[in-house]
Amino acid sequence: MDGSNGEERIVHEVALVVPKRTREEEEGDCVEVLVTELKKRGMVVDRVVGLADEFLKVAAPLETLESAAAELHIRKPTRLGMDLPFEMQGSEAFIQQPDGSLFSWFERFRCYQHLLYGIVNCYGHDVTLKLDGRELCWAAGESLVRKLESEGVIKQMFPLHDELKRKELLPTWALNWWNFTNQPIDKIYSYFGAKIGVYFSFLGMYTQWLLFPALLGFIVQMVDFGSLQFLVLPSFFVITTLWAALFLQFWKRKNAALLARWQINCLVGPSQGYRFLGMEWSSLPFPKELVRNLGDEKFKEKEPYQRYEWFAYRKRFRNDVLVFISIICLQLPFELAFAHTYEMITSNTAKFVLLAIYLLIIQYLTRLGAKVSVKLINREVNESVEYRANSLIYKVFGLYFMQTYIGIFYHALLHRNFMTLRQLLLQRLIISQVFWTLMDGSLPYLKYSYRKFRARKKKRNEVGPSTGKIQISSRVEKEYFKPTYSASIGVELEDGLFDDSLKLALQFGMIMMFACAFPLAFTLAAVSNIMEIRTTALKLLVTLQRPSPRAAATIGAWLNIWQFLVVMSICTNSALLVCLYDKEGKWKMEPGLAAILIMEHILLLLKFGLSRLVPEEPAWVRANRLKNVTQAQDMYSKQLLRSSSGESTPMVTPEQEQKQQQELKQS
Amino acid sequence: MDGSNGEERIVHEVALVVPKRTREEEEGDCVEVLVTELKKRGMVVDRVVGLADEFLKVAAPLETLESAAAELHIRKPTRLGMDLPFEMQGSEAFIQQPDGSLFSWFERFRCYQHLLYGIVNCYGHDVTLKLDGRELCWAAGESLVRKLESEGVIKQMFPLHDELKRKELLPTWALNWWNFTNQPIDKIYSYFGAKIGVYFSFLGMYTQWLLFPALLGFIVQMVDFGSLQFLVLPSFFVITTLWAALFLQFWKRKNAALLARWQINCLVGPSQGYRFLGMEWSSLPFPKELVRNLGDEKFKEKEPYQRYEWFAYRKRFRNDVLVFISIICLQLPFELAFAHTYEMITSNTAKFVLLAIYLLIIQYLTRLGAKVSVKLINREVNESVEYRANSLIYKVFGLYFMQTYIGIFYHALLHRNFMTLRQLLLQRLIISQVFWTLMDGSLPYLKYSYRKFRARKKKRNEVGPSTGKIQISSRVEKEYFKPTYSASIGVELEDGLFDDSLKLALQFGMIMMFACAFPLAFTLAAVSNIMEIRTTALKLLVTLQRPSPRAAATIGAWLNIWQFLVVMSICTNSALLVCLYDKEGKWKMEPGLAAILIMEHILLLLKFGLSRLVPEEPAWVRANRLKNVTQAQDMYSKQLLRSSSGESTPMVTPEQEQKQQQELKQS
Repeated sequence: MDGSNGEERIVHEVALVVPKRTREEEEGDCVEVLVTELKKRGMVVDRVVGLADEFLKVAAPLETLESAAAELHIRKPTRLGMDLPFEMQGSEAFIQQPDGSLFSWFERFRCYQHLLYGIVNCYGHDVTLKLDGRELCWAAGESLVRKLESEGVIKQMFPLHDELKRKELLPTWALNWWNFTNQPIDKIYSYFGAKIGVYFSFLGMYTQWLLFPALLGFIVQMVDFGSLQFLVLPSFFVITTLWAALFLQFWKRKNAALLARWQINCLVGPSQGYRFLGMEWSSLPFPKELVRNLGDEKFKEKEPYQRYEWFAYRKRFRNDVLVFISIICLQLPFELAFAHTYEMITSNTAKFVLLAIYLLIIQYLTRLGAKVSVKLINREVNESVEYRANSLIYKVFGLYFMQTYIGIFYHALLHRNFMTLRQLLLQRLIISQVFWTLMDGSLPYLKYSYRKFRARKKKRNEVGPSTGKIQISSRVEKEYFKPTYSASIGVELEDGLFDDSLKLALQFGMIMMFACAFPLAFTLAAVSNIMEIRTTALKLLVTLQRPSPRAAATIGAWLNIWQFLVVMSICTNSALLVCLYDKEGKWKMEPGLAAILIMEHILLLLKFGLSRLVPEEPAWVRANRLKNVTQAQDMYSKQLLRSSSGESTPMVTPEQEQKQQQELKQS
Repeated sequence: MDGSNGEERIVHEVALVVPKRTREEEEGDCVEVLVTELKKRGMVVDRVVGLADEFLKVAAPLETLESAAAELHIRKPTRLGMDLPFEMQGSEAFIQQPDGSLFSWFERFRCYQHLLYGIVNCYGHDVTLKLDGRELCWAAGESLVRKLESEGVIKQMFPLHDELKRKELLPTWALNWWNFTNQPIDKIYSYFGAKIGVYFSFLGMYTQWLLFPALLGFIVQMVDFGSLQFLVLPSFFVITTLWAALFLQFWKRKNAALLARWQINCLVGPSQGYRFLGMEWSSLPFPKELVRNLGDEKFKEKEPYQRYEWFAYRKRFRNDVLVFISIICLQLPFELAFAHTYEMITSNTAKFVLLAIYLLIIQYLTRLGAKVSVKLINREVNESVEYRANSLIYKVFGLYFMQTYIGIFYHALLHRNFMTLRQLLLQRLIISQVFWTLMDGSLPYLKYSYRKFRARKKKRNEVGPSTGKIQISSRVEKEYFKPTYSASIGVELEDGLFDDSLKLALQFGMIMMFACAFPLAFTLAAVSNIMEIRTTALKLLVTLQRPSPRAAATIGAWLNIWQFLVVMSICTNSALLVCLYDKEGKWKMEPGLAAILIMEHILLLLKFGLSRLVPEEPAWVRANRLKNVTQAQDMYSKQLLRSSSGESTPMVTPEQEQKQQQELKQS
């Protein structure tokens, strides 16, 4: 895989789990057919027999990957400065990854999927496959892997850890505790893909920036400023707000720099434009028929686009309003009722019982909410998976926002007592930290142990109790027993990054929104995040299967959620300051004044929200631009490539070139 | 010029003003030399003798323009979908303008300038030119037009009206009063260029949208809603705010659509990217040495960019802070002092005298402020003219904002009386409308008449008083007497569009910020704008010289100013509502609460302001992207063009192509 190494190292990157062969060699055994077909397609297959299953470790040499990439027309940045579909012949014109390989992990995984699912029956007649006596019919033109998956023969297909790189990352990244926020981001990117690389880069930068307010918060909490004490909390509030706004702005810069370094050209990529960074609303994908129809006389064909655009937005807007209203009208009263009851009850036992019931209910409610959201989103017109994932994030975050903060708000408004509020915040921060660490650390291990135990038990039942301890020797089987990196709200659309990002956002909201009440929270958050970097790294490298790479290269919807939390924190801290300095209730908020203030704030939010809601560029303009660019590139890519490779190594003679030129003209 | 017409019409588009020849034909007369040289460069010259001067009307046939465009490497959109430098050979691959011509007015004007200033002495020795006995030395390699301009021989060079198109526009646009807000925008674009086209499109859309709040304001002002009356003004406030936010958002869409229709590709254009629409701060131009040095190993060369970026931003930031502080600390007290004195004085005569003195002072102060701003801006690192123009707009608008609104704010807060506030607003709106109409209508005509009178008088002195009335017969001389379309704050950086946009923005601020006090203002504004469209059109077509076309294709800084005015209007209307419903002063704003509210608002503004202040994309990333695209296009443009034209008309034989290919490889 490493073109820079000179000699090629065979890395098995994908594993297929198939049943262990029980009988001896037989003609037409489906696993045998699969292996033969895989090898025929140029893949290297390593068969490992485990306790209960057999594992096919699949590796694809560079040539196989290249031909798959050419078949998929994977668009890659070239030395010419534009993205072109991959071609076998001009492969040296394509820019290499930071680690020297030609394809990124995301591209390789796409190629693997294409190679595996692309094994179709091209014998022209149905082939009969055998499996433990059963017979399967592999119809002509059918995909073998898909067939075997639907028949349950292939139990799972999962990406494999690359042991060499994992062993390299383990000491330099996951166990490098003294490095604080520094991480080998480029290596993480090339091992886990852009999405996870960007997440860790964000986590690292956030933790680094957090050190400043952490120090400040510590000073504010510990030092007595004497007669100037009354100025301390407002100044802290102002400084943290500016800090947060600056941080988010500089993160956008850093993200752009990362994309440039990794040669991910978002200008015309699968993620529909660079504007992705802050404008998810505008990235509406188009049905392919529409784009194809957009010809030279494009101004007559503007209308279907406009119709399509408004139709899609109306549907989306309706869904968003639906979710928003149900959160406000259903969840908010429920949370308030719980907070009120909890505060009213005096008996400790009753409190405990109530809390347990509440936790059970919200567990159920969150899952329900996520399911409803996924259903709503799937009925919208969003073709891009990443867009749908972002839409889900917004909706589910609404639920979590209410769950996490309503209780604290209620407490703050009811008691107007900073000491109990501080205790509550401290409690929540520590509990959530402990809870998440336990969940992250122990749950995957428990799952892994349970699966291992079950497999061993099954084996013992088969072989008999006399064999003593059964060892699991193969690495691939151990990885098979490890749980996947999946989201708690469901495996559709999102992976485990959802939970990690959610945790971070909730923490940010907690420390920012109650900054005036508890400045020390910043210090706690900084310490917890420094640990968080390494524990999450360990989780990804050791306790979980290697996650499938994802296309997006930004933190997506989370950035907007953080922006929203900063705006919220301005309002809540103002309210807290009023509570703090108006202990005797002297400053009256007459209903009229209060109403006007509330209206003003809602309008301000709407004003800034609207610029997100209405896309700046009409859909047909964007479609046109994209179309134009891709059209030109598709038309001349072959020619461009040929001439560029001709400069370095004149592979093509002028005669050949002339011939090709004529062919091009005819076509 | 019109390729679609089949036959070419000679349009003289630029005029040079030279002194009238007093003696007979002489060897080496500088005007004769100029005409000979112009003709030698392929231009068509028409000599018109006027009263005091001679006019050289210059036209360039299509071939001359094409060669000039090829020399200038003017980047134009092609049918291939990318912008390529213009080439004579492949001219049919370039997309035509909406009116069928190959070059836009802006491009043509650039070519004219290139052609005129490109006449250099290439005889290898100095040439002696004669002028009324004086002798001028035209040094080798010197530009003839520049030399003659510096010697005062060429008094002025100005773009000429195209009589045919002007006569077409006059009835369909300027005199088409019953068309309300509809205008032939495409024709305006092709006659005046993108900047003026966009301005009129904005004015039209604004007026169209204004009809809705105008109707609503009329109803609110005239109808008595009985017991619901107390809800009317708050609802009106909410509706107008939403209306304004939506209008600005939809304007951005319309602007994008216009750019697409006019084939102005802002993605990689002279205006430095599409993000121009809302992000002037980030469009930092680079010195050419920096871009050139950005080679393949670009990551090592990131640092000079970062240094350059921060240096430029620091300087700019310092200037902005300087201007802001001087407006707050110098202008604000002055305006407040005037407003206070004016309110305190009871005698009408004294009031009148005070107003006259005030008007004189602010006239002087505004000019001073503009001059200081221009000086500050010129010392910044802004290479693009349009960027500097935007920077000037922000700074000068600050002055006008204080001048226009501080008096009204003072009045509103002092008297808390809606009736007198309404009177004041009505007064201001009508006075400003009358004042501007007079200025626009009469001043240019007075200037024109004065110049004509002076020229006639001079002629009469020469010829003797016996000749009777002297008629000015030539169109070009009349146009020479007309004033130019220039800004009141100075001719540097901005043209007359500044005054027109300023007028519109001040009107928008007036109606939005005091919406609750005077809903009828929207109706007045709508009526005044419907008139404004036609009067400005008449001004441009009849009373002024044809303005030089400008590069930008958005309303630029004005959009941000309008956004700012919307945010301001939310705050002022809230304050007005408090005044309205709290007549008895019952709702106390205790100092603490007020301080916290003020702090909250400042923070909210800062939060949203910061996202403008810090560019999202590091300079080196953007430079890289631009470099990459242009590099590829420059490298392969010839080849791409050849093959595209080869498809339609096979001009180049394969043998020739092969030869060219080899040449390309060698170079």
